[in-house]
Amino acid sequence: MNINGKPYRTIWTDPAEPGAVFIIDQRPLPHELRIVALRTLDEAVTAIRDMWVRGAPLIGATAAFGLYLASLEAQTQADPAACLAKASRRLAATRPTAVNLQWALDRMQAVLQPLPAGQWPARALAEAQAIADEDVQISYQIGQNGLPLIEAVARRKPDEPVHILTHCNAGWMATVDWGTATAPIYLAHQAGIPLHVWVDETRPRNQGARITAYELAAHGIPHTVIPDNTGGHLMQHGLVDMCIVGTDRTTRCGDVANKIGTYLKALAAHDNGVPFYVALPSTTIDWSLCDGRAEIPIEQREGSEVTHIQGWDEEAGRILPVRLTPANSPAANYAFDVTPARLVTQLITERGCCEASESGLLGLFPEKNSV
Amino acid sequence: MNINGKPYRTIWTDPAEPGAVFIIDQRPLPHELRIVALRTLDEAVTAIRDMWVRGAPLIGATAAFGLYLASLEAQTQADPAACLAKASRRLAATRPTAVNLQWALDRMQAVLQPLPAGQWPARALAEAQAIADEDVQISYQIGQNGLPLIEAVARRKPDEPVHILTHCNAGWMATVDWGTATAPIYLAHQAGIPLHVWVDETRPRNQGARITAYELAAHGIPHTVIPDNTGGHLMQHGLVDMCIVGTDRTTRCGDVANKIGTYLKALAAHDNGVPFYVALPSTTIDWSLCDGRAEIPIEQREGSEVTHIQGWDEEAGRILPVRLTPANSPAANYAFDVTPARLVTQLITERGCCEASESGLLGLFPEKNSV
Repeated sequence: MNINGKPYRTIWTDPAEPGAVFIIDQRPLPHELRIVALRTLDEAVTAIRDMWVRGAPLIGATAAFGLYLASLEAQTQADPAACLAKASRRLAATRPTAVNLQWALDRMQAVLQPLPAGQWPARALAEAQAIADEDVQISYQIGQNGLPLIEAVARRKPDEPVHILTHCNAGWMATVDWGTATAPIYLAHQAGIPLHVWVDETRPRNQGARITAYELAAHGIPHTVIPDNTGGHLMQHGLVDMCIVGTDRTTRCGDVANKIGTYLKALAAHDNGVPFYVALPSTTIDWSLCDGRAEIPIEQREGSEVTHIQGWDEEAGRILPVRLTPANSPAANYAFDVTPARLVTQLITERGCCEASESGLLGLFPEKNSV
Repeated sequence: MNINGKPYRTIWTDPAEPGAVFIIDQRPLPHELRIVALRTLDEAVTAIRDMWVRGAPLIGATAAFGLYLASLEAQTQADPAACLAKASRRLAATRPTAVNLQWALDRMQAVLQPLPAGQWPARALAEAQAIADEDVQISYQIGQNGLPLIEAVARRKPDEPVHILTHCNAGWMATVDWGTATAPIYLAHQAGIPLHVWVDETRPRNQGARITAYELAAHGIPHTVIPDNTGGHLMQHGLVDMCIVGTDRTTRCGDVANKIGTYLKALAAHDNGVPFYVALPSTTIDWSLCDGRAEIPIEQREGSEVTHIQGWDEEAGRILPVRLTPANSPAANYAFDVTPARLVTQLITERGCCEASESGLLGLFPEKNSV
């Protein structure tokens, strides 16, 4: 999408600079737009592991481009195949729970292994590019399938903006372009529908306040940042027309694991008759699970993400962490929660929309009937 | 309650220092414990207006002590009565929505007006002290009435701590001592019941992370700070035995206005069969209202409380504000929300516990039948 009028993706190459992969380093957002060139496997590993890039689809694409960088390095090694395999293992270990990561690496290995090492770089670059392009296409399809839901509201209230609440960042910065939850929003904006997005700040890591707000501001979409506590009040007072969120993992029965706090917004939406949509690429459906609450393991992260926060020191003009809590108070940091399917109005996938249920999902993905 | 073993109230005088009223300046908490002596009406006005003290009961007590300071200043004025009346108006204007403020000032004026000005200071000091003492007694009674709810859980699971979730600060720092939501917790701790408190950080002003966590840490009660997004997940997994929160205003039908986000926790408690208790002094019941959602006006505060946060710069050893959002993203800051009575298990008042309903409240306060 656009940053101040110029179109970007989150990851790209430039024919004029072979051997370089460009990313937006998302850590200093929204305070600084930092474009970084990754030129080695080490740099790609660092970028994924230390969350310069994040979001399952973007992690997958970055790993694919990382293997392209590794294929260049393998040329000078005694055993290029061993070198490539080791690179793949290193990349896979950066974020062990990201399902797209292993999928992208397996796909890259499958096309490279049959070839002589000398042909790897060109083939790896093409395949990584294909993975990125396909991700853009999937997000775009999610957008196309979600767009009618926004259009329907816009028809009901032609003189007012459609108010959409979102949680965390399932935006283009989490994918290669368009995003998942944001894809229908960007397409509706492109279609001239007046919109306004309520952006949950999404503590503790504030991906809403930092990244979703940055995206929307940079693309010119009206929005307002709110504390995570606010959505229920807004819904009680008719100020939210729909919620659209992303998901990290959805079970075959339609239970949705997403950033911590999603469940609370789904409860409020349900209590106030506000539609609650979850946008997802089908790669994030876990066909092996049904009961999300019981079966999806929830990552616990460092308490320091709760006790400390990073912001812009306006006096010194720099990014600074500050402590929010008493020095001797512990903090808990559960990264995700599970929203039961009963609270989800519809799932929006690249193949279309469906009820959040096994039969709904199998209707769109009949090939999974045998799983 | 205790701060590092020494008992405190939030406001007190010292016979050795007449003409001084001591408070805990709550702004630098939890990073610094700053005791301030208020010696003039101006200082008392500033302390209330700029939220050195906050919480309806404590605001009322501070206003009463402020009128004591004004009564000292009135001695040297040509028209002491006009001076005192003006002081009362100034104090009343500091936080116009705090109901206890006007109540305390009216009570002070009623005892002072019949007396000659020369007798005001001693009488004002005694009356302000009585207001503070009565507030302590009310909080203590709330604690006594809530204690059996905690004891009942403790009997069911004798080998584990009772896990209590609270939102914002309805602790002793919001009152003169004990607090409202925290009073049963402090009494249970005193009775030797093993406890653990989940402390919602309570964005945007973080009264949970800053003040409730400070209180509990200083008094030695096990607790964990959590993002506001976390409570739903904890309740889904059986990690919360009960919620206890305070309230800023409760309608006669039992709808509860409290810090923004309370409603979301009440929804999660209801969805998971977790009891949701609201502790309140009867002074915060608004007998003139029934439908809280429709009738209670919700204060909107500065967006800067959302876009910026204050924390401890560990490098420089000082408190510093940092910006969290893009410079051009607006923010909304609704201070309260309304939890419908249907989501409240019981109200805990100084007269006892009751159902959150008109008949429940009138059972405890039959004198209000005629209202």
